[in-house]
Order: sequence, then structure tokens, then C-alpha cells
Amino acid sequence: MHGFVRNLITEWRRLELPFSGETFIVAVSGGADSISLILALNELKKREKLNHRFIVAHFNHMLRAGASDADEDFVRRLAVEHGLELAVGHGHISQKGNLEQNARNARYDFLTKTAESAKAFAILTGHTVNDQAETFLMNLIRGSGPDGLSGMRAIRKLGDAKAQGQVDAKISEDNNSPFLPISPSPLLLTRPLLTWATRRATENFCHEMGVEYRYDTMNEDLTFKRVRIRKLLIPMLEDFNPKIIETLAKTASLMREASEEEGERRKPGNAETGKLGPSSAGPINDQLALKDLKSLKKTDLYELLRNWIKQHRGNLRGIEMKHIEAIERLIQSRKSGKTAELPDRKAVVKHGGVLRFEDLKVEKLASEH
Amino acid sequence: MHGFVRNLITEWRRLELPFSGETFIVAVSGGADSISLILALNELKKREKLNHRFIVAHFNHMLRAGASDADEDFVRRLAVEHGLELAVGHGHISQKGNLEQNARNARYDFLTKTAESAKAFAILTGHTVNDQAETFLMNLIRGSGPDGLSGMRAIRKLGDAKAQGQVDAKISEDNNSPFLPISPSPLLLTRPLLTWATRRATENFCHEMGVEYRYDTMNEDLTFKRVRIRKLLIPMLEDFNPKIIETLAKTASLMREASEEEGERRKPGNAETGKLGPSSAGPINDQLALKDLKSLKKTDLYELLRNWIKQHRGNLRGIEMKHIEAIERLIQSRKSGKTAELPDRKAVVKHGGVLRFEDLKVEKLASEH
Repeated sequence: MHGFVRNLITEWRRLELPFSGETFIVAVSGGADSISLILALNELKKREKLNHRFIVAHFNHMLRAGASDADEDFVRRLAVEHGLELAVGHGHISQKGNLEQNARNARYDFLTKTAESAKAFAILTGHTVNDQAETFLMNLIRGSGPDGLSGMRAIRKLGDAKAQGQVDAKISEDNNSPFLPISPSPLLLTRPLLTWATRRATENFCHEMGVEYRYDTMNEDLTFKRVRIRKLLIPMLEDFNPKIIETLAKTASLMREASEEEGERRKPGNAETGKLGPSSAGPINDQLALKDLKSLKKTDLYELLRNWIKQHRGNLRGIEMKHIEAIERLIQSRKSGKTAELPDRKAVVKHGGVLRFEDLKVEKLASEH
Repeated sequence: MHGFVRNLITEWRRLELPFSGETFIVAVSGGADSISLILALNELKKREKLNHRFIVAHFNHMLRAGASDADEDFVRRLAVEHGLELAVGHGHISQKGNLEQNARNARYDFLTKTAESAKAFAILTGHTVNDQAETFLMNLIRGSGPDGLSGMRAIRKLGDAKAQGQVDAKISEDNNSPFLPISPSPLLLTRPLLTWATRRATENFCHEMGVEYRYDTMNEDLTFKRVRIRKLLIPMLEDFNPKIIETLAKTASLMREASEEEGERRKPGNAETGKLGPSSAGPINDQLALKDLKSLKKTDLYELLRNWIKQHRGNLRGIEMKHIEAIERLIQSRKSGKTAELPDRKAVVKHGGVLRFEDLKVEKLASEH
């Protein structure tokens, strides 16, 4: 058995995933990461190590003219050649707001619906060690604070609608899980390559299996921050430490473990901060009392604010340390105004001894133009 | 009052340092950071905001021929011009082992002795926000794990002999403080520029005061990792985030706060892991029982191992994630050998159900040559 396939089944066991009788949706873009995943799964199926139904799910965003259709054709041919079931979705991506995020949301909707109609056990994605390392650097650079440095998880339950935007995100806000509303659905999101497969390893595996994969030309476009991190920053970091990808990914995963332990402690009933924080069980706090917030240590306050924002916005994308600090100033100082602005025309407003989460007032927006 | 001076007195208040009647040792290399510190302190003394005895302490390592003597002459002249007391030490730096570390130890010895003979309240150093950010990156790159990413503290008690190597370290291992043996001496180490002054701000302040400062030619030498971080890596990170220095320093300080809270919880009697870990109160654990270690979560295990190593070696310099992982393999696996090697000819050895900290066997060393 190829080492790549052996590593996958080892991780499968570690994640305590079932060995037979289930359906899995495999998100396949056509890149080396997702192609290597489906090839290895298919190999395990042929060897009767995994007796599951695997459905290749490809979402065509229709954003890159001919290239998107060529990706779709490629995945269709691959599925036929390997006798794999296939589900294809087509995108109607809103051009309003953040295009990348809209595309992600649309892809997620498709994957979830496909999973639900197939009564799938989990959605599998091809995120690699490199994705983990790049996400860590993205979050470090934008200053998202210690809990923002927690890595993506190799396995998690899919949250409710508010949290769904994150699901297949390469730029994941996959933090603070203890406070995420947990969906009653048992559907899981699993990233079985995340902890051990580098992007290079997925490419090598495809080559060795004699299977082509698609290059996303957006991966060469240096106007994307993630591409600059991959193409410029990481090679420089490799001059310092040739194993930097693995080192960063490991750091992210240790930070996640530490933050999950912390989260355990803060569950309602477990610790004194639990009673104040938005918890996974309770409803969203519409407002936070200033006097409660003032008594918190900075790290607890920051974590609570980030979770509160996440509950209202559905994610933490674009939330930087400066936003949290602005809210902290609202709390601490009588001088600083009444509003801390957030991205996406949202704001935290101080009024009558409490903080509220609100849409930014129209007149405020008008004055900005 | 110049903004730099005002910021210094604000930080002085925040650190709850005394305003009169004490003696402070100010470590002055001749660089912009330490020169700006002594200039600002002297300004506060003239304005009677701080009524203390400030002693300029300069250590001549005698490592860079004429340059080291020129630095000493420069600091001597500055002290005379500004009517400052001066203590100068001369180095006898061992060429064995890590030269930088030996120089640091010698400088520390000198500063401590000077402080003790003057019955000083604290040693003050000119570490800046940049030093904090660079240290964070050094530790991130070498993979020292989450607790290795905690920043230097702006104020701390000086530890016992085992911990002294760190004191004035630009590459500080200033972590895990809750487990550090605390000296009965009240001598403090304080870094009053650390949380707010960038290196650029110290240079600007010197220029505006019309005072020269010395450049250390070693700061241009790209064979040093820290210099490459400063000259190559940070400028690239600034392309992503112009405030990267402040962002990284803030992240380090939030990580420190989180780890100190965690440390509080783990003090003996506070939490279940406390009883196992080497604590600040108890003696050093000569050995660790495998069965106790096996029951720990990974993050607790890693922290415990790092603290245990630190108690035996005096610091964590050169300890990378690979070393901790090697010890973890010793613990978890019956297959992996009996010894995990550490830098400096030390090793962790598995024997009869326990781990011991030992010197590497001679025959082992011989075979390496």
C-alpha cells in the first residue's frame, strides 16, 4: 500500500471514523489536494478497508469563464474513469460584498444539501498541512490574537446557519468552538489530510498514481494575500526553518488543543466566566453589561467579545485586533465615543450601561462617501 | 514634556514602580534603545518626577576589538556630559559553547553584582517593542510551541542562578514564569520601553534630543538569525501589515497573559495537574513516572516537559518542538529507543518506568565524531 494511503487510513482510525456502511461527500475541486484524497479513498475502498459510499461533489463557481468549466469537465472525467458517483453544483455567486466569501458560502450550501439528501455521515475536504500553516500566518499577520491562532480542526460537527460560512473556508475562522451553536444534525466536517499531508505530498501522490490534477490560476495571483503568503513569505521562512510548514501547523494545532481545554473549563457551570459568556447552549446575548465586562481579565474579555461578535455576525472574518481594542476602549473609557465600527456595516454601540450589536446607522454610512 | 518621556512615566505608573528614594541600575550598551531610556529617565529626574539614583551600567564584552572600546568611551562621555553615575564592567567571555549566551551571562553577572552592591531596587533595560516582536518570531520559527510564544514581561523578579542566563537576553526564554524558582532577593528586572516604544521611536527621541548613539555592527551581520529576521523577514511582513511589529508584540503579550492565568490555575492546590508538575515551591523532580505522563493531555504534557527541562538545564534555549516530540515518543511508544537527545550534551532517558534527565553518555558522543 502506498504510504499516502496508509497515512490516510491511520488518520481515519485516529479520528474514530466508521469503516463501513456510511456515505461520505468528498469535496473535489480538481486540485492535487482533493484529487489525492479521492484517489486514496478509492484505493481503500478497493482494498475493502473502507466499505463506504463515496460521492465526489464538485461545485462550479462559474467565476473563471472557461477555466471553471474545464475544472468541471476534468472532475467529471475522473469520476467516470474511476467509477465514482458524482454530484455537480453550479454557482450563482453574488457579486456584492466579498466575492471569495460568497463563493465559499455557495459551495458550502451545495455540499451540505448534497450531504443531507444522501444522508451522509460527513463531508470530507482536502485541506492540507499547508492550508493550516497559511491560515495561521494569515491570522497572525492580521492580529487576530491568541485564540485566532488556533488551527482548523481535523473533525468537527457542522454548526447552524450562522456558522456555516466557515465550513469549507481556506481562510477559516474555525475558532472558539466551545461557544459555537452545535447543530442537532450529526453531519460532520472532516479534513483527513490536515494533520499529516503537505501540498507537495498530495502532488507527489497524484504523480505516482499517474493522475493529472488542475492548477487554479488564482493560486498564482499575487493580489491575493494568501498567494503572497504561499509564494513569498513561506519560502523566506523556509530559509530559517526548512520544516516551517509542519512547525506552524503543529503550533496551530497545539494552540487549538489549549483553547479547547480552556473552553471546556468555561462551559456553563464549569467556571465563573461561563455564566457571562455566550455559551453553546443558551441564546445569543443581545447585550452585554459594561459592569460585568469591566471585571474581566483582558484575555477573557477579548475571547468573550470575539465569541459575541461571532454569534451575531456568524463568523469573525475581517475582525482584527483593532476592532476588539476599540470595543475595549468603549468599555473602559468614558471619553471614547459610543460606537465601535466593525466591517460589513456592523457596529458595537454603548448605550445605557450595556453594549449592543447593531447595524451601522445610514447617516454614518452616507457621510463616509 | 516630550511624548517619549511622558510615555515612560505613564508606563512607570502602570508598573507601579516607586517615585523616590531608590537606586536603579540602567543597562546602557550605547544603542538608541538604552540611550533613549537613560536620557528620558534623566529628564524625569531633572523635572523631579522621579527622585532616584540612576546608575549607568555598561558592560564591555571586549569581543569586537576597537568597536567595544569605542562603545565604552562613548558611554563614559555621555555619563560625564549628563552628570550620571557610571559603572563599567569588562568581559572575560568564554569562547566555549554559545558565545552570545556566554556574553549574556557575563553581562548579567555584572549587572546583578552592580545592583546588589548598590542595593538597587531594579535593573532597567532598553528592550523595545521590536525586541518583543523579533523574539516572538524567533520562537515561532524554531517551533517552541504556544508557551514559547509568550512575550517577555515588562517587569519580573530576578530568578535564582539557574534562571539568570535569561535576564538580559535579547533572545529571551522568559516563559513559564509560574514554575520559575523565585529568588528571595527583591531585585527586579524591568523593561520600561517594552510595551510601547519601537526602535524607531528610540532613534527619533535621540535625534530630537541631539544625542548620538552607537550602531552595533553585529546588527548588520546577516549570519545572525535575529538580524535576518529584522532586516529581511519583518520588512516583508510589513508589506502585509504596516503595524506588524506592534501586532506581534501585542500577540506575544496576550499569550503571556493567557499563560500566566493558566499558570495561576496550575499552582499546587489549584488544579489537578499542579500536583504532578514541577512547581515553583517544590524541589526539582528527579524523575517523571511514565504512567502519570501518559494520562496527560498533549498540551499539559508539553508544558510539563518544558518546565521540567527548564528546571534541570536552567533555560529552554535550543529546545525545539522536535525535542519535546522525541520525549513524547519515548513516553508513548514501546518501540522508540531509550534516549531523547537534547542540545548541550543532555538527554532524557527512559528507564524502569520513569524518565530521567541525564548527561549524554561519553561513548555516544564519541561515535558522533
